Amino acid sequence: MPRIRLDLAYDGSGFSGWAAQPGRRTVQGVLTEALATLLREDVQLTVAGRTDAGVHAADQVAHLDVSDAAWAALPGRCDRTSEQALLDRLDRLLIRGSGVLRASDVVVRAASVVDESFDARFAAIWRAYRYRVAEPGAFDPRTRASTWWVRDELDVAAMGEAAALLVGEWDFAALCKPREGASTIRRLTHAEVMRADGAIAIDLRADAFCHSMVRSIVGCLVAVGQGKKPSSWLGELLASRDRSLAAAVAPAHGLTLMAVGYPPQDQWASRQEETRRFRTTAAGRDES
Amino acid sequence: MPRIRLDLAYDGSGFSGWAAQPGRRTVQGVLTEALATLLREDVQLTVAGRTDAGVHAADQVAHLDVSDAAWAALPGRCDRTSEQALLDRLDRLLIRGSGVLRASDVVVRAASVVDESFDARFAAIWRAYRYRVAEPGAFDPRTRASTWWVRDELDVAAMGEAAALLVGEWDFAALCKPREGASTIRRLTHAEVMRADGAIAIDLRADAFCHSMVRSIVGCLVAVGQGKKPSSWLGELLASRDRSLAAAVAPAHGLTLMAVGYPPQDQWASRQEETRRFRTTAAGRDES
Repeated sequence: MPRIRLDLAYDGSGFSGWAAQPGRRTVQGVLTEALATLLREDVQLTVAGRTDAGVHAADQVAHLDVSDAAWAALPGRCDRTSEQALLDRLDRLLIRGSGVLRASDVVVRAASVVDESFDARFAAIWRAYRYRVAEPGAFDPRTRASTWWVRDELDVAAMGEAAALLVGEWDFAALCKPREGASTIRRLTHAEVMRADGAIAIDLRADAFCHSMVRSIVGCLVAVGQGKKPSSWLGELLASRDRSLAAAVAPAHGLTLMAVGYPPQDQWASRQEETRRFRTTAAGRDES
Repeated sequence: MPRIRLDLAYDGSGFSGWAAQPGRRTVQGVLTEALATLLREDVQLTVAGRTDAGVHAADQVAHLDVSDAAWAALPGRCDRTSEQALLDRLDRLLIRGSGVLRASDVVVRAASVVDESFDARFAAIWRAYRYRVAEPGAFDPRTRASTWWVRDELDVAAMGEAAALLVGEWDFAALCKPREGASTIRRLTHAEVMRADGAIAIDLRADAFCHSMVRSIVGCLVAVGQGKKPSSWLGELLASRDRSLAAAVAPAHGLTLMAVGYPPQDQWASRQEETRRFRTTAAGRDES
């Protein structure tokens, strides 16, 4: 029963997020349908970052288990590996084909057999997100589906100072949408604000993010950039643990999951165990 | 009667090109309607690069003449310039409003009063285009509307060598869609192929381009990149002046007009005169 790792990218505009929901077009739903069609068996997908509606992914990771028989049958009569056959058939179903799945807004870039100790969600050690903001005079219609257009000039240096205050292990309660019984403690290892590709890029990296955390941080950083709040406000907000004091959450469409990090293979099992232990206690981590 | 220069950008996906056509949504049509609405007078737009259906613009230039009365009336009772008022009303009509014009796929970034010797089309001295190609493993759904996805690995060095052969003043008949009585002689001053932003960028700059010229060059460069033709083929093709020998024209959606260049103001009048003279002789230049 081989375990398959998939590396994929999507434009979130046409999806109601990652997670399958009845009657809605979701990334998980479209991929599960495509995989079940070509494997001719039921498929269960596990993902590293459960992105919200409208959020994009440049390099998302998921895994699934495939029966030995279905995996061996994939190449058909062709002289190629099962991995190559899987990618080619996904390409036909999702991009080149003529069916309802074909919209070219989700692409599977790589498929590889991994040890069963790999788990796309629980073995991950970090997630990196980028949020794009454009100021007046820099609105680019070609990237409007992945950029938040704000109507004020922003003080990028002040935003960078504010972002730096968030680096560390903290209780991010003031910047998370609360979930019953889930911890809001996270370790943010990287926070940077810079001009890139004609926009302002806000790059954040953490072991995991709680729900709406990136968009909440961005909303607060933009308030700092607009001069509505001083840079130091982010530190006070964090200390308050009071979500009612935060700025409005930034819109989903500016956000992209950029990459997911995993430890070396010999640490997959221990990392999984460690994350699962957190999940089943009061300090449970609920990534998004 | 002030002459107004507009700097604008658009996503060509939803337009049947620049030029107004009855019953079709075009950039010129949408802009003309918006300008006529807010100026309350007829408007005639002249553009630097008449882009085809599906082609994008990062920095397009157009001009129009506005009556003194309409220009003076623009600020209304507000304490602002006519330029600011024009930009703000265009923003409301094209981006923030609720009418049919609002799709955010065309943005006017700057408006400025210029001397009447300025002409967006005839005073221009160069146009720069970028064409984006992605190879397998680099397909990014977020940029699929502005990138041609090819299913072969490409030899970028060979493509660069081939592109370099095109730099100079030549008869590009083998790489132009012919137009009655129009010259196909152009001066290509820059041709470069490089990896940028996860794709292969083909950058071309010329005094002007004849119809389909960039897309024809790209089609031939990709044939070289695929190994179907040697780099030297581009030189032979150019010398043949025979369009039937060229590769298929690349699709429109990978193409973006990046920038338009103008001489210093004291040369606008002479440049206009020079270009117009070419246009009315057998050596007429027909930009696209």
